[in-house]
Amino acid sequence: MASASDLYPIDCPFCRIAQAYPAEASPIPHNPDPDLISPQAHVILSTPHVMAFLDILPMAPGHILVTTRDHYQKVSDLYNPKVGADWVSQQVASKSRQDSRAIGEWLPLVSRALCKVTGIEDWNIVQNNGERAAQVVPHVHFHLIPRYQEGRRDTATKGNVNFDQMKSWRMFGRGTREELDDDEAKEMSANLRAALREEVREELNERAKL
Amino acid sequence: MASASDLYPIDCPFCRIAQAYPAEASPIPHNPDPDLISPQAHVILSTPHVMAFLDILPMAPGHILVTTRDHYQKVSDLYNPKVGADWVSQQVASKSRQDSRAIGEWLPLVSRALCKVTGIEDWNIVQNNGERAAQVVPHVHFHLIPRYQEGRRDTATKGNVNFDQMKSWRMFGRGTREELDDDEAKEMSANLRAALREEVREELNERAKL
Repeated sequence: MASASDLYPIDCPFCRIAQAYPAEASPIPHNPDPDLISPQAHVILSTPHVMAFLDILPMAPGHILVTTRDHYQKVSDLYNPKVGADWVSQQVASKSRQDSRAIGEWLPLVSRALCKVTGIEDWNIVQNNGERAAQVVPHVHFHLIPRYQEGRRDTATKGNVNFDQMKSWRMFGRGTREELDDDEAKEMSANLRAALREEVREELNERAKL
Repeated sequence: MASASDLYPIDCPFCRIAQAYPAEASPIPHNPDPDLISPQAHVILSTPHVMAFLDILPMAPGHILVTTRDHYQKVSDLYNPKVGADWVSQQVASKSRQDSRAIGEWLPLVSRALCKVTGIEDWNIVQNNGERAAQVVPHVHFHLIPRYQEGRRDTATKGNVNFDQMKSWRMFGRGTREELDDDEAKEMSANLRAALREEVREELNERAKL
């Protein structure tokens, strides 16, 4: 029988977030307390399959990480149909398939929420596998990194954006990554949750009817 | 009624590939002819939902693009549950949801095939949305970019890797992107198809039993 520590390696920061913020009835948690763990976690999405929260060292304001709830190190550790015929192997394959699909399904929704809140139209999705690819946390995650238009402050005023931080945005390993400001993060994540809730409103209504 | 030109914008190079290489019975096409279009396309995956082929300006040997078959410009144009109640809107939402899930489901499989063929253990997945994010082709696609270990040629001999090209690998917009060599690409894509076929072997066997 799998124990909690098998499911959530204690030395993995994203597993600590997953453990502290279990899936709720709604995929978008209602006003989650960022201080449940340290450093703070600003969670915007929490399902049995995926989670999303603000990067604590943002490369630009609104930098989001989309991760699986379960621990997989690299993308290659996700869905694998080549499994044994036994029941446990089949269950693991089925769960990893659902997790992989959920990543694909939520990236568009989280992206739209990000665009709406920050006013950006351009962004990168970056997922790093292994040290030579700049992976730092060994738990599969997709960076959503807004690319703000220089000199156009009007496009990004809704999310309480820190423009000093913005100017220092560059590619991985070259830019300045400053620590997330707690108050800004609180407002940004609340705005993102509201936008994300709006994105899935129809679906939640449908589900409520069942 | 949607026409072929609605489904495949003629000025979109990835739609041209999608049109030239329709989905076959197997997700991995059997020995597809790269000269069906110009420039050549080296297709390794072709389903009703997703396609994968070699980048014609690789940043490293084995640089693969995973795309949707249908035309979506950005990730934010993929799955959207906020649709009208009419039949056509529902069908579009359902197809875009399947396409989004298929991306999530195939990224692990294509990644494992890439690792197997090139011998790499580290790679980046990069998806660019909009000009300021370095998106060139306006059809949603995920770059799989191997990160080779410098000075360790033994790890990457299986895929007929061009090491001169490898040395010039850098981040987007900074590295030298040389045109894909046709003969190398032919061998690389054949190896990738064989590895990918092996990845889904169990699933294809299961499907054949039905």
